[in-house]
Amino acid sequence: MAELEDRLLRVAADFDNYKKRAAREREEYVAHANERLVKELLPILDDLERALDAVGQHEEATVEDGVRLVHRSLAALLEKNGVREIATEGMFDPHVHEALLSQPSEAQEGSVIDVVQKGYTLGDRVVRPARVVIASAPAAQEPDA
Amino acid sequence: MAELEDRLLRVAADFDNYKKRAAREREEYVAHANERLVKELLPILDDLERALDAVGQHEEATVEDGVRLVHRSLAALLEKNGVREIATEGMFDPHVHEALLSQPSEAQEGSVIDVVQKGYTLGDRVVRPARVVIASAPAAQEPDA
Repeated sequence: MAELEDRLLRVAADFDNYKKRAAREREEYVAHANERLVKELLPILDDLERALDAVGQHEEATVEDGVRLVHRSLAALLEKNGVREIATEGMFDPHVHEALLSQPSEAQEGSVIDVVQKGYTLGDRVVRPARVVIASAPAAQEPDA
Repeated sequence: MAELEDRLLRVAADFDNYKKRAAREREEYVAHANERLVKELLPILDDLERALDAVGQHEEATVEDGVRLVHRSLAALLEKNGVREIATEGMFDPHVHEALLSQPSEAQEGSVIDVVQKGYTLGDRVVRPARVVIASAPAAQEPDA
């Protein structure tokens, strides 16, 4: 009896400690996850500030190189963190596309004919659907007069 | 006795379930923390792509506006996420500054006289120290010949 009671108290105490530690760890995990991304963003902010200086100096070639560099860096950072551009070739897919409008078109009915805003996934989640225009049936031709 | 055993088994089972749930939640928390930041970065990537198009079209005014916009957006995003620029006025502070070199100067010995790379904190942590040049005592003057 005393032994069982003892075990019960010990398990309950372990449980309690575990809960406290888990809550603390959860906070640290979130802070760390953000810190890693933030750290990777700082060199991009540096490059932007250099480009901004070049804007002030009217050094157009430097500004343009800066834009290319910053774009490449940010795209690479997002890709490294699991972000992928959503494909828009072929048929409209309501899971990953958002139809802004449909237009009469010679293309296959229901296929994507224009991308208004690119979409992205993170892992298996859609962070932002691709906003697209889809093809409706071609307008009926006026009979020849 | 049976009642105590029963309680022990129940507490042990609760503990086990809690551990599994905590591990699952921790993963989700991290994924969510990243997802929020990633979501905020996508409009910045959009603006960069517009600036990149303008580079291709040699529309210099649009490129420059784009650089200013992207810089403002990224700086605001980082600030909203708790990132702060480290102050560099006054004396060298080894907790937040990294001395790259010291130069003889009329300024107070040990004060920061130039910033080579800005530093940043996230909450109470230094994400990157400010890289600075500090003042050493002025060089001894040559006696007049």
